[in-house]
Amino acid sequence: MSQATLMDGTALARRIVEETARQAADLTARTGVTPCLATVLVGEDPASVTYVRMKQNRSRKAGIASRHVSLPAETTTAELIGTLTELSADPAVHGILLQHPMGHHIDERAAFEAIAPEKDVDGVTLASFSAMSFGLPGFASCTPGGIMRLLDAYDVDPAGRRAVVVGRSAILGRPVGMLLLGRDATVTYCHSRTPAADLSSVLREADIVVAAVGRPRLIRGEDIKPGAVVVDAGYNAGNVGDVDFDSARERASLITPVPGGVGPMTIATLLSQTVEAAVRQTGA
Amino acid sequence: MSQATLMDGTALARRIVEETARQAADLTARTGVTPCLATVLVGEDPASVTYVRMKQNRSRKAGIASRHVSLPAETTTAELIGTLTELSADPAVHGILLQHPMGHHIDERAAFEAIAPEKDVDGVTLASFSAMSFGLPGFASCTPGGIMRLLDAYDVDPAGRRAVVVGRSAILGRPVGMLLLGRDATVTYCHSRTPAADLSSVLREADIVVAAVGRPRLIRGEDIKPGAVVVDAGYNAGNVGDVDFDSARERASLITPVPGGVGPMTIATLLSQTVEAAVRQTGA
Repeated sequence: MSQATLMDGTALARRIVEETARQAADLTARTGVTPCLATVLVGEDPASVTYVRMKQNRSRKAGIASRHVSLPAETTTAELIGTLTELSADPAVHGILLQHPMGHHIDERAAFEAIAPEKDVDGVTLASFSAMSFGLPGFASCTPGGIMRLLDAYDVDPAGRRAVVVGRSAILGRPVGMLLLGRDATVTYCHSRTPAADLSSVLREADIVVAAVGRPRLIRGEDIKPGAVVVDAGYNAGNVGDVDFDSARERASLITPVPGGVGPMTIATLLSQTVEAAVRQTGA
Repeated sequence: MSQATLMDGTALARRIVEETARQAADLTARTGVTPCLATVLVGEDPASVTYVRMKQNRSRKAGIASRHVSLPAETTTAELIGTLTELSADPAVHGILLQHPMGHHIDERAAFEAIAPEKDVDGVTLASFSAMSFGLPGFASCTPGGIMRLLDAYDVDPAGRRAVVVGRSAILGRPVGMLLLGRDATVTYCHSRTPAADLSSVLREADIVVAAVGRPRLIRGEDIKPGAVVVDAGYNAGNVGDVDFDSARERASLITPVPGGVGPMTIATLLSQTVEAAVRQTGA
């Protein structure tokens, strides 16, 4: 059987970041303003430290300045909200990224809501979710936004197709389902409470599969409809996605590798939205 | 074949309104405050005039005061926003209902967003949609909220069941799907761009069907899974729902009649949420 074409997120992300860098340079040349992304980290979780550093490095290469705020692990929700409110009011900051997950003592929703929607380039506020749900102006959650850019780049039109989103998290499953619905797909949400037989039967009818649940190799090739488009946003230990890649690629027409599929698109979307925010805020 | 049990929205709505009236009377007795629903109508569309009058009458019977604002058909969006902003700031008003649809010259979304979320007892703001989507405190859109109350009253637990929502409007299809997802159903959204064959195949696997599309008798009994729960939120000329009642009741286990199913639940939810808003706002 023929194998699926790989959806090359690394290459597409590179093109988006190059275009973003051009826009950033253009803004700076015209106005003297350098786009600035503030990153906020609570505690010193090694993975989170690495993620934030990577985002800063990528920002710099794209001509985006970083401002990093590192808060101690014992920071309270109120203190974190104070920091985010200050950054939201600071005209030199155009985008705000609050690295998460955070410690359990933090009210994550309350913290997210302290980010001004026009600076929510990570798409974590309720305002951003509403914007995604109804096609209003605003920023996408970065992974859902990156997935839609990937589908567009490979000419996958969701209109009238059956899409299944496996997972229903606030910044991945739920919003990507809303984005697909806004593009006229017939959308099914499956999740941890979906019986295995139902998941299997829904997958077998799906033209577009978005796996966003964080369970290694949950989705097997035998459940993929021949010719389907498979997007694996899973992130599990050992660079294993939510999709069993080897069996799925035998049936899909297009499939994202892990790594090198959705991951790079998430950061590219973050950078692109940061420059977009800077352009809007400078009115340039 | 045995026929489905009717889900009696009229009777359940009556019980909810009775309980609401008790809560309103209790609030007034304790605090001297009478819950107040402001209704805003733009223009003189006869159906809208009738709806608003009915809501005012029902309010009065439940011990809720009405304040009606009638605006001329040529009212601009800015003027309407002005009115809604005043009502949002008025401490004597606890809930606001903006009758819709409105004339095409009105930016409906901008108008809705002028309603303070804590007074959005009709559940039309983006804040209310987010609250429904993530199980946060806030008000439900009245028809989705009424549907969930109806399911609860008939002991229909959506958890782990397959639900299909036919329709994706901002205040009906989309939010009721989110409410069902929050209750752990596997949810599929079908809509005008869903091919007929897909609609049929999704319906045939659905344990819970919510029809909310406004197309008379679109859903036929032959597509209803035996034993399914069928909720018809359609409103079409001649009191015809979106479901072909006679054929569907032969296969469903529970079904809402039209009229007398979802309709009365919508108003009951509006009144119940108005008193809840008054209780919250008076801190009583």
